[in-house]
Amino acid sequence: MIEVGMKDIQDAYEQIEPFVFKTPMIYSEPTSRRVGSEVWFKMENLQMGGAHKIRGALNSMLKLSPEELKRGVVTASAGNHSLAVAYAAKLMETSAIVCVPEYAPLTKRQKAEKYGAQLLVCGPHFEDAERKAFEVARETGRKFIHAYETPETIAGQGTVMLECFREWKDFDAVLVPTGGGGLLCGTAIACKAEHPETKVYGLQTEASAPWLRSFHEKTLHNDCAYAPTCADGLEGAIGWPNVELALTCVDDIFAVTEKSLREGIKWMSVMHNLMIEGAAATCLGALFERHEALQGKRVLCLISGGNIDPERFCEICRESYPWQKEGKSKGEVA
Amino acid sequence: MIEVGMKDIQDAYEQIEPFVFKTPMIYSEPTSRRVGSEVWFKMENLQMGGAHKIRGALNSMLKLSPEELKRGVVTASAGNHSLAVAYAAKLMETSAIVCVPEYAPLTKRQKAEKYGAQLLVCGPHFEDAERKAFEVARETGRKFIHAYETPETIAGQGTVMLECFREWKDFDAVLVPTGGGGLLCGTAIACKAEHPETKVYGLQTEASAPWLRSFHEKTLHNDCAYAPTCADGLEGAIGWPNVELALTCVDDIFAVTEKSLREGIKWMSVMHNLMIEGAAATCLGALFERHEALQGKRVLCLISGGNIDPERFCEICRESYPWQKEGKSKGEVA
Repeated sequence: MIEVGMKDIQDAYEQIEPFVFKTPMIYSEPTSRRVGSEVWFKMENLQMGGAHKIRGALNSMLKLSPEELKRGVVTASAGNHSLAVAYAAKLMETSAIVCVPEYAPLTKRQKAEKYGAQLLVCGPHFEDAERKAFEVARETGRKFIHAYETPETIAGQGTVMLECFREWKDFDAVLVPTGGGGLLCGTAIACKAEHPETKVYGLQTEASAPWLRSFHEKTLHNDCAYAPTCADGLEGAIGWPNVELALTCVDDIFAVTEKSLREGIKWMSVMHNLMIEGAAATCLGALFERHEALQGKRVLCLISGGNIDPERFCEICRESYPWQKEGKSKGEVA
Repeated sequence: MIEVGMKDIQDAYEQIEPFVFKTPMIYSEPTSRRVGSEVWFKMENLQMGGAHKIRGALNSMLKLSPEELKRGVVTASAGNHSLAVAYAAKLMETSAIVCVPEYAPLTKRQKAEKYGAQLLVCGPHFEDAERKAFEVARETGRKFIHAYETPETIAGQGTVMLECFREWKDFDAVLVPTGGGGLLCGTAIACKAEHPETKVYGLQTEASAPWLRSFHEKTLHNDCAYAPTCADGLEGAIGWPNVELALTCVDDIFAVTEKSLREGIKWMSVMHNLMIEGAAATCLGALFERHEALQGKRVLCLISGGNIDPERFCEICRESYPWQKEGKSKGEVA
């Protein structure tokens, strides 16, 4: 079992604090009104690089020896972790190679390149990118920086929740977008240590939900159906170590529909002038779909990232929903 | 001369604090790097209603007598003040009529209606809306809530700067999007009281810049050229009282090009996943255009609002700039 405790999260925060934003936490009046809960957003979409991933990447890389740093790093990710590693490598004056699958959004690739990383595009699935990254690590001696499955990454991502607790503690539930499960496990460990009554729910999209059966049946099940998804950050198969860890600290996993995701993206743009990515929009989706489970509760949503391709964002902005006024405003002409 | 002092701003904050967000202030690493200054954003685009205007509107309306509240209120505005008055009226359980010019963005009209206000669309210019609102006030006994030119409004808008100073004081310069001048005067009064070394610059768009000559020649000049603008919140003629007040506390006025504005909107979406409106983007425009004046300085940008029509936003998102990678990311296929 992966060993991560509150002490690791606290240590991680001490290490990374000078390099990351203390992102704002805001209360969302319109969301609260709509879903009958009290809803807060922890805005990691405003984090360096536009996502929480910099926390885990930095915590991993700050532990490297001077020799390891000299050889550089390599990683595989659908996007946000890649650009986090690229950014961390820039800060630490080393070089990074990042392997991404073909579906990695342009905006995430461009940011990784902007930070000076070398980008390798590696086939249709996340697994293709991962395979290539392992190969590069083996051949070049570069250190592989895992996106979600090491104590360092999990402790790093857990610092998000630590920051929230420094502002306020009494959440009834925390909603956590879940891909590999690093943010989920880090959050749950922090919650169980600091405020054990807080329920922690992992969120996936129905289009890619291996966590759902794996968690409920306590065995790894990557054999679910995979469909195209707006939540590129959550796409793909998972590993047993994080599921095993999650079974000790996470309360449940939900899967939300793509329709709800898209609605969540539009909702955040209309109500809060924010661009959020599909992964983060699972929080809105879960609130929109599960009024019963979260009804009347104080719910913290981890808005895990905001890196969405403008083209996709604009496509979603053109969709219309019942809570919007249709077409023209009704103002009378005076 | 309009009389507003620091005490009025402090009193205003005491009144409105329970109803407004303490909006986040963030340091922008990419903007700082690009322009060679240290740049902070005070994010009033995340304020209730998506703009700072709720502060002035609430401060004005909290001072109304029960009889005045019973008769309701009326206002004229290009958008953000209208929806602020609508929201304040909802909070205070009174009714609001808001008069807007035809160019008022759909998103602002819709939000005002959503808060329950009656919307009147009144001709092509801001002055048309204002004329209508005065007429409604006269005929119905509704109290007219001014958008920028009363001590209550100015003190209310000044609370933005008060909040910033509670976090940090040592800004060399503050950039303030300027339409009627309420936010500009409120900000300058707070600065001169709390940290007089801080320079306060008002920003307009070249497409509508009556402040420029009025301020420099110390006489009202509304006879400048007016062109279509992305900064709908800043459009239109101004009044002498706020210019007179600004001459006692504001350091200078700049006008920025429409091109820089648009670039500012795109920049904020790419770098920070934020939707900001044209008015707020004057801050980015000024930074992009005036490297010399602000070079090496600690600059606070008041991101005054985020209510931009999605259609316009998406149109701007499709524009490309030299700081972006063109077309496809360069990642090699591995």
